Amino acid sequence: MTANAEPLTPVLKSSQQIYQTYNVLKRYKDQILKEYGLTLEQLSVLSVISYFGGTARITDIADWLERSANSVSMIVDRMVKAGLVSRKRDRVDRRVVYVSATSKGKAAFGPGYAAYIELVRRVFQPLSQADMNTLADLLRTVKCEVLKYSNPEVDIKKVPRIDAKKLADTERWLNESGLLSLPEAKGRGKTKSKTTHRHR
Amino acid sequence: MTANAEPLTPVLKSSQQIYQTYNVLKRYKDQILKEYGLTLEQLSVLSVISYFGGTARITDIADWLERSANSVSMIVDRMVKAGLVSRKRDRVDRRVVYVSATSKGKAAFGPGYAAYIELVRRVFQPLSQADMNTLADLLRTVKCEVLKYSNPEVDIKKVPRIDAKKLADTERWLNESGLLSLPEAKGRGKTKSKTTHRHR
Repeated sequence: MTANAEPLTPVLKSSQQIYQTYNVLKRYKDQILKEYGLTLEQLSVLSVISYFGGTARITDIADWLERSANSVSMIVDRMVKAGLVSRKRDRVDRRVVYVSATSKGKAAFGPGYAAYIELVRRVFQPLSQADMNTLADLLRTVKCEVLKYSNPEVDIKKVPRIDAKKLADTERWLNESGLLSLPEAKGRGKTKSKTTHRHR
Repeated sequence: MTANAEPLTPVLKSSQQIYQTYNVLKRYKDQILKEYGLTLEQLSVLSVISYFGGTARITDIADWLERSANSVSMIVDRMVKAGLVSRKRDRVDRRVVYVSATSKGKAAFGPGYAAYIELVRRVFQPLSQADMNTLADLLRTVKCEVLKYSNPEVDIKKVPRIDAKKLADTERWLNESGLLSLPEAKGRGKTKSKTTHRHR
């Protein structure tokens, strides 16, 4: 029996669900954020800027979002045109670009981020906390296996710690920013919420 | 206790892993497919064309990939320029556009798809079949919850059956196409494979 006598069905099934779930989630986030004049990509950039205290370098944004500096540059270009952010080159090192939110960007970000949090809370509601932990662990296992091949310089053993730190940093920022106490984040936004008490 | 007294951590953790896993997977697929002169998007379009027997309408491709006709049109534009596909309008209904693979597109597709299958087999290897089923079920639950809000006209009860049909159709096509018997799909491609027997 060779490796490839293993059935392909579960592999294709998992692969199909990762693709579809990511995509319907992304589309729904864009659909909700449109009401706030933002795309999901723009919200992500604004959240990294907020996380970095109001100004972030293109490279910081790219690192945090795990995207290429090039793709972040293109998003930032469109955001400058939309009046959401401003850009400034470092006087000494001209390669370094700083990005800050404009007042228009800041005004869209607060309620947009709160609506985003309300959305993710809502769509994960059918899963218990144990389910969510299982889901995250299984996905991380696949992610680490991908990184082993695609990025051999990454120390896979450190990935869970890096993920946990990023999560803790995000939560600290969220708590300090006051974003969670905005009405939308409390589930009183435009979109219906079906939550009551959940114990599974 | 309101819904939002529920801890946010597991939600953010699952959300983080869906985003990251999708993205590292996409990047790795693009990295491997580059060796075959294709992007992941281009491979997807070529696979739908192959599935439809050599020619597919833009709307078929969009439906199958669950993307907008507009975004598929843009991908097809670039593929025409790259010489991978040709495009033809229906003589009677000019809104209908048929897309076929060129000989260059066909030549890239076979080995590219085989390498793609080898890649997905490899990255899911650390998961048992039961793990993969759990992963797929948890993701589908989230997907259905998203669809309930984003696409209220979708009959959620039918989603598992639709997914299963799509998977069965894909497998039938894969078996009939002979793509799985190409060297790359058998794990004898350029990239290393660590598989031996797995029983968990």
